[in-house]
Amino acid sequence: MTYDSIFSAAQEAFLFYKNVSGKEKAAFLETLAEILEAHRAEIVPLAVRESNLPEGRINGELGRTTGQIRLFANLVKEGSWVEATIDPADPNRSPLPKADIRRILTPLGPVVVFGASNFPLAFSTAGGDTISALASGCPVIYKAHPAHPETSQKVADCIHEAIVKSGLPSALFTHIEGGIAEGQALVKHHLAKAVAFTGSHVGGKALFDLANQREEPIPVYAEMGSVNPIFTFPKKLGNEVVPLAKAFIGSLTLGVGQFCTNPGLIFVPKEHAIAFENAIADELNDIASAPMLHPGIAQAYYDSIQYLQSREELRWVKVADPKHLINGSTALAEIKAKDWLSDAVFQKEVFGAFAMMVVYKSEDELLEIAKKLHGQLTITVWAEAEELQNQLFLLNLLEEKCGRLLFKGVPTGVEVGYAMQHGGPYPSTTAPNSTSVGAHAIKRFVRPIAFQDMPQELLPDALRDGNPLGIWRMVNGLMTK
Amino acid sequence: MTYDSIFSAAQEAFLFYKNVSGKEKAAFLETLAEILEAHRAEIVPLAVRESNLPEGRINGELGRTTGQIRLFANLVKEGSWVEATIDPADPNRSPLPKADIRRILTPLGPVVVFGASNFPLAFSTAGGDTISALASGCPVIYKAHPAHPETSQKVADCIHEAIVKSGLPSALFTHIEGGIAEGQALVKHHLAKAVAFTGSHVGGKALFDLANQREEPIPVYAEMGSVNPIFTFPKKLGNEVVPLAKAFIGSLTLGVGQFCTNPGLIFVPKEHAIAFENAIADELNDIASAPMLHPGIAQAYYDSIQYLQSREELRWVKVADPKHLINGSTALAEIKAKDWLSDAVFQKEVFGAFAMMVVYKSEDELLEIAKKLHGQLTITVWAEAEELQNQLFLLNLLEEKCGRLLFKGVPTGVEVGYAMQHGGPYPSTTAPNSTSVGAHAIKRFVRPIAFQDMPQELLPDALRDGNPLGIWRMVNGLMTK
Repeated sequence: MTYDSIFSAAQEAFLFYKNVSGKEKAAFLETLAEILEAHRAEIVPLAVRESNLPEGRINGELGRTTGQIRLFANLVKEGSWVEATIDPADPNRSPLPKADIRRILTPLGPVVVFGASNFPLAFSTAGGDTISALASGCPVIYKAHPAHPETSQKVADCIHEAIVKSGLPSALFTHIEGGIAEGQALVKHHLAKAVAFTGSHVGGKALFDLANQREEPIPVYAEMGSVNPIFTFPKKLGNEVVPLAKAFIGSLTLGVGQFCTNPGLIFVPKEHAIAFENAIADELNDIASAPMLHPGIAQAYYDSIQYLQSREELRWVKVADPKHLINGSTALAEIKAKDWLSDAVFQKEVFGAFAMMVVYKSEDELLEIAKKLHGQLTITVWAEAEELQNQLFLLNLLEEKCGRLLFKGVPTGVEVGYAMQHGGPYPSTTAPNSTSVGAHAIKRFVRPIAFQDMPQELLPDALRDGNPLGIWRMVNGLMTK
Repeated sequence: MTYDSIFSAAQEAFLFYKNVSGKEKAAFLETLAEILEAHRAEIVPLAVRESNLPEGRINGELGRTTGQIRLFANLVKEGSWVEATIDPADPNRSPLPKADIRRILTPLGPVVVFGASNFPLAFSTAGGDTISALASGCPVIYKAHPAHPETSQKVADCIHEAIVKSGLPSALFTHIEGGIAEGQALVKHHLAKAVAFTGSHVGGKALFDLANQREEPIPVYAEMGSVNPIFTFPKKLGNEVVPLAKAFIGSLTLGVGQFCTNPGLIFVPKEHAIAFENAIADELNDIASAPMLHPGIAQAYYDSIQYLQSREELRWVKVADPKHLINGSTALAEIKAKDWLSDAVFQKEVFGAFAMMVVYKSEDELLEIAKKLHGQLTITVWAEAEELQNQLFLLNLLEEKCGRLLFKGVPTGVEVGYAMQHGGPYPSTTAPNSTSVGAHAIKRFVRPIAFQDMPQELLPDALRDGNPLGIWRMVNGLMTK
């Protein structure tokens, strides 16, 4: 099939699917979750083989994937997510009568989704981007990640099984293999209405630029990762040096450091730097190197480390050992805050289990750091309660720089729920006003439309008099059900 | 002041203002509305002189402006607009305990707003863009429209009076005069976080491109107008040929056609084309030409008309009469659907009281038109109820092409309320997922942030346990107050 015929079929499917009820969409998604679980025994070994990730992790990721699918099924079954809003008519208003205006969120049309190498299931073929787009009412043209083609095809087969079982048009989901050229062609196609991507900064920014140069620019929701800094305060670090070192190294090295939210940067007060360094050195000794997702990622990791080794500002606590190139060997370097502040290259993400420990001397330096910090998916603050009492200004600065601000625990492990925000200021994403994880991810694929004086029988059920769907709506400015 | 010092002061004001409560922001906005009304006798004559618009219209526009200000005051006083969402912790969840995650909308920072020539008050200095940004918590750097500098300065003085009276930092609002170069410098400044613009396609698209080429791309909410087509169906038009002609010409020529939503395109079935043409010709005879906003706009109008007069596909029902160049003289031309479909230039907006009447022969032609139609702010359908019974497919196509779909009345006269959507697919705007009129306009200047395990005393009031603000919140997926 040519891309023209793929998109034409998707557009035709869209005009049918956008009128399918929330309940029917939910049933389709629930069917898909069941089918994926029924094929667990085939999917998991494929994904393990193609990603080098352990079976336990992949099993968990399949659970996360079906959990996400059920979250969106519940969301569209309940139905209030469309933000139905009604401003009733007032024929007696003077000087002019007031029209009846009703607003709802409407799906955009066919969208292009790119698979991610580091989550072969949860951020790939039937992952959060695909599912939130399908839940919103948009058909998906899916570009498989070349690192796990067989896993991707198998999951795509499951999606098609669910489509057929649900009596929906097969063009609702199209699975496409290919590289950069194929991905670019999809983004450039005039019937594409939005793009979702999780991956590198270079890849995401290129798609963003391409989409903005189209005759009709379209939104690109690119989640491009970040270094997810942890800010440690003296009392807290002094009180818990060993447990915090354990937590930090655990989060840094989880999945060989191949998470968008792994903490590649930690700010440590000078007075506890040596104790903390010793504690993390102990932890690092216990971490065995493990294979990365694919050779290209391992190569990029060692290339970055090699460059950083040429920088004399860094003192290496542990150097990476590239003796088995596919293996990601943990690495950690120390740098003074003054030096870190002097060159933005030290803010660049190194995808893998590498972190920079930045030693600061004063609160003034912390403020300077907060001001210069690039946009992040997450920022974590480790402090005793009394240490934050006079830090409103610093906390405000940190808020400006992230999508999620943590005060306990570690940034890895992104909860899938209603309140999650997985997205942050540029360069962590190209769309800081959106999330790629959690219920609000559905909002990326819709836009508002208002109907003025539309006859009742033509209105979507969500906007009809008497609220036949029983959803939350805003009527005359007040929430009502 | 240099732009650097202006933005630095705005950024400093931002870090203060973002912690100001909704009630205080509302009091500030209400004070501003009162001050504007107190200065009505000075503002109105200035705006009349600088815009060539009649006094009645400007008086009404001031009322619209203060009405908008009070709408946003009520919105932030009530407070639920921040979409507070709480996913409570579950320490007993297995295999891992669940963190406490709370999401809220947070303001972006200093934003750049451009004034519009055609609404010297309601879309200018204290217009919807400025007010929705201030309501959201963002300082505004305002670039005055060169067509009404004195009106703009007077309104800016009122805003500063309100700022002083409310004890807020004066850098909350900065009034800047200048042309294209000044506007571009503002959009390029690294501390600018978003841009709002209402005006021409050329201007809006240039700002959009500029903002995307920044080191940190920022959103541009450009409302660039459209031709706002009216689709007429045979029975309806046959039944009401004279009243519909009156309504159409009234909307087309209102304010010398200088509205984003004036209908510059009407589709008419062949069987009623002659009767409708005669009826609109009668109406057109009664329309006196009137001065346009400024000579540049009149010149652009006549240039466009002159080009169209060179196109042999058009038959002129009424030609424009450029004898007084500042006056906008109504013009109307007829074209066959087949010819209209052959060249996208016929879809281009001519800003002013010009319309194209497109004569169609069949429903197939209507579908073809709907498919080829560019994105619009509004589309209007004039049909008897029975004529729409089998038109779901056409209506779906029209939905894809607009932000507001009307079934009665005319597109001019944009209600300011909760359900209004003033925005539509490109090229009518650069951000179809937003509105520049109505309560939802505030959402353009915020992004979501999630706080994980944040101590109660650091949380914004909207997210604290016990709901101290008494707002609507989503807790564990359920709406509650």
